[in-house]
Amino acid sequence: MEISITKTTTPKQKPADESKLGFGQYYTDHMFIMNYDEGEGWHNPRIVPYGPFELDPAAMVLHYAQEIFEGMKAYRTADGSIQLFRPDKNMARMNVSCDRLCIPKIDEEFAIKAIKTLVEVDKDWVPSLDGTSLYIRPYIFATDAQVGVHPAKHLTFAIILSPVGAYYPQGIAPVKIFVEQKYVRAVIGGTGFTKAGANYAISLKGQEEAAEQGYVQTLWLDGVERKYVEEVGSMNVFFKIDGEVVTPALVGSILGGITRMSIIELLQSKGYKVSERRLSIDELVEAFKAGKLEEAWGTGTAAVISPIGELKYGDLVMPVNNGEIGEVTHMLYDTLTGIQWGKIKDEFGWTVKID
Amino acid sequence: MEISITKTTTPKQKPADESKLGFGQYYTDHMFIMNYDEGEGWHNPRIVPYGPFELDPAAMVLHYAQEIFEGMKAYRTADGSIQLFRPDKNMARMNVSCDRLCIPKIDEEFAIKAIKTLVEVDKDWVPSLDGTSLYIRPYIFATDAQVGVHPAKHLTFAIILSPVGAYYPQGIAPVKIFVEQKYVRAVIGGTGFTKAGANYAISLKGQEEAAEQGYVQTLWLDGVERKYVEEVGSMNVFFKIDGEVVTPALVGSILGGITRMSIIELLQSKGYKVSERRLSIDELVEAFKAGKLEEAWGTGTAAVISPIGELKYGDLVMPVNNGEIGEVTHMLYDTLTGIQWGKIKDEFGWTVKID
Ligand SMILES: Cc1ncc(COP(=O)(O)O)c(C=O)c1O
Ligand SMILES: Cc1ncc(COP(=O)(O)O)c(C=O)c1O
Repeated sequence: MEISITKTTTPKQKPADESKLGFGQYYTDHMFIMNYDEGEGWHNPRIVPYGPFELDPAAMVLHYAQEIFEGMKAYRTADGSIQLFRPDKNMARMNVSCDRLCIPKIDEEFAIKAIKTLVEVDKDWVPSLDGTSLYIRPYIFATDAQVGVHPAKHLTFAIILSPVGAYYPQGIAPVKIFVEQKYVRAVIGGTGFTKAGANYAISLKGQEEAAEQGYVQTLWLDGVERKYVEEVGSMNVFFKIDGEVVTPALVGSILGGITRMSIIELLQSKGYKVSERRLSIDELVEAFKAGKLEEAWGTGTAAVISPIGELKYGDLVMPVNNGEIGEVTHMLYDTLTGIQWGKIKDEFGWTVKID
Repeated sequence: MEISITKTTTPKQKPADESKLGFGQYYTDHMFIMNYDEGEGWHNPRIVPYGPFELDPAAMVLHYAQEIFEGMKAYRTADGSIQLFRPDKNMARMNVSCDRLCIPKIDEEFAIKAIKTLVEVDKDWVPSLDGTSLYIRPYIFATDAQVGVHPAKHLTFAIILSPVGAYYPQGIAPVKIFVEQKYVRAVIGGTGFTKAGANYAISLKGQEEAAEQGYVQTLWLDGVERKYVEEVGSMNVFFKIDGEVVTPALVGSILGGITRMSIIELLQSKGYKVSERRLSIDELVEAFKAGKLEEAWGTGTAAVISPIGELKYGDLVMPVNNGEIGEVTHMLYDTLTGIQWGKIKDEFGWTVKID
């Protein structure tokens, strides 16, 4: 399929101050769109000026949330070139989401081409300031104008781009986490292993309550026994306990993060043993009490590594590493961001140049 | 708040054949809209010609499914008047959904006024043929153009109307149900007790698999022990076992249907004992084997009562009442549809006239 390109005639003003980009505040001049119609498959791929969608009031996405997305970044390296990080993994995961949500799969190779072409068109929007990047949001939503509950026959795949600021403009700093006991994000048999919009709607309330209590993120426990650690906010989570690096196994209710995957491979390449297993909150409490909860961090595209400085579980407040960033956490942050922004040689073949 | 009304200048052709309306195929000439903006609250209520929404590509509803809806009907009675069924219950439930999904609550009284006004404007769209009705779909979705995960500050409340056909044009007939063991619809701690769009996206896959196996609907089991009966398709479910009418208790993962509530009250008024309790699939199997699984039916606004003629659980096929509609099921169907279409005197005060 050929991607047609229609350039804007009214380019927007780019944000002047790259230290104030924030997250998702600005969108670039163009977007990629293609359509699915039953019988035709995915067709009419095009890059067009960024602008609103017209949706019938009965459009399925507004009623039944048949929608999925991906999140990845383009990074500006020191020599001015632009690179992606493991885009094949994001597109493979997108198809996992499609399958679970009854959305027709996309051609992964083609989707990567679409991402590259769009980033190329809007390359001047990729910021250069340390820690900044261009957030890439591919997504699919159902447009059938029919309020019967059914898998859609008409869908839109779109990609939008947003220049985003450094996650830690004041330097990487540990966050305080609230262990959620009332609300559940996802359960085995549901959609927790996908990037379905549904999971994020369901998670809002827990995040809101954590925020009300002065905590930045929620530590989600499993929906069955309500005791196994699953994710932290919209990130995967790792702990270093008595020398062992542990992250919850991907049992079906947990998203398989690309950052998680990369962190595991990175640790293994450096000789660390990483256990992907079930990890209960009680085990964490015991480790804390025994002085063996050494480090804790979240992983995700937005923050890369988010050190955890404190966990609150009921009335128990558990500082981790005196609220300071741990040694392994720091090493991982430096190494992975180093690879992503091209400051460190990529020995894994994870980065993909644009152009 | 005053509802402004802008009438269409190009009314649509109404569907000529009321025996072929189907569900959600046609929409009326007008829709109701109001907006929420942080600081202003819900404002600018208006009835306008039915037409597309313009949504920013970053609009939250397309990414994080912050959206909820309601479903109810307007019925044409023999004397030509139009009535609603317990609209206060739908609007109360809508606010339950709002609360769980971090959506600012609506004024229930005002929302009922909006529904009445809209139905009044489009009253010629309420069909008259036996069993037909005007389906009413109030819904709310988040429009913030910001791809950070957060409770929206900008939302749209809309109401659209769709003339719908008789659910059983060939007379009420039992359906075959597939007991779902792989996929889970909702779990306690999640959003199953609300009409969040999320729940419907999550349920599509199970419904698809049931359909592939030749079954009309899915019987959902609970997400924790995977053995307690919860709902059937998008309906609540009732069983008559050895003379006892049983329906799953509203434990947090089950939607509290308005039809369910009404059926319970109806049965009680006729001297039946109804148990709202946990009901395991094993208990159903045992009852079946002992010849005590007497009747089974789903309840919901769309079908009112949907008799269940067969349950398939793994390899076990369990016909209910020889695949025929049971006596209590039939009585409930006749009574409730009788009240809704004004053929039977409403002694409960459930119906609300338009005008
Ligand atoms: C729920 C959830 N878990 C984990 C992650 C981390 O995934 P990734 O490393 O691919 O960004 C994300 C996305 O950022 C997420 O939304
Ligand atoms: C999941 C689900 N359960 C049950 C019902 C029945 O609710 P009601 O009787 O209010 O239509 C519905 C809606 O029709 C539903 O979507």
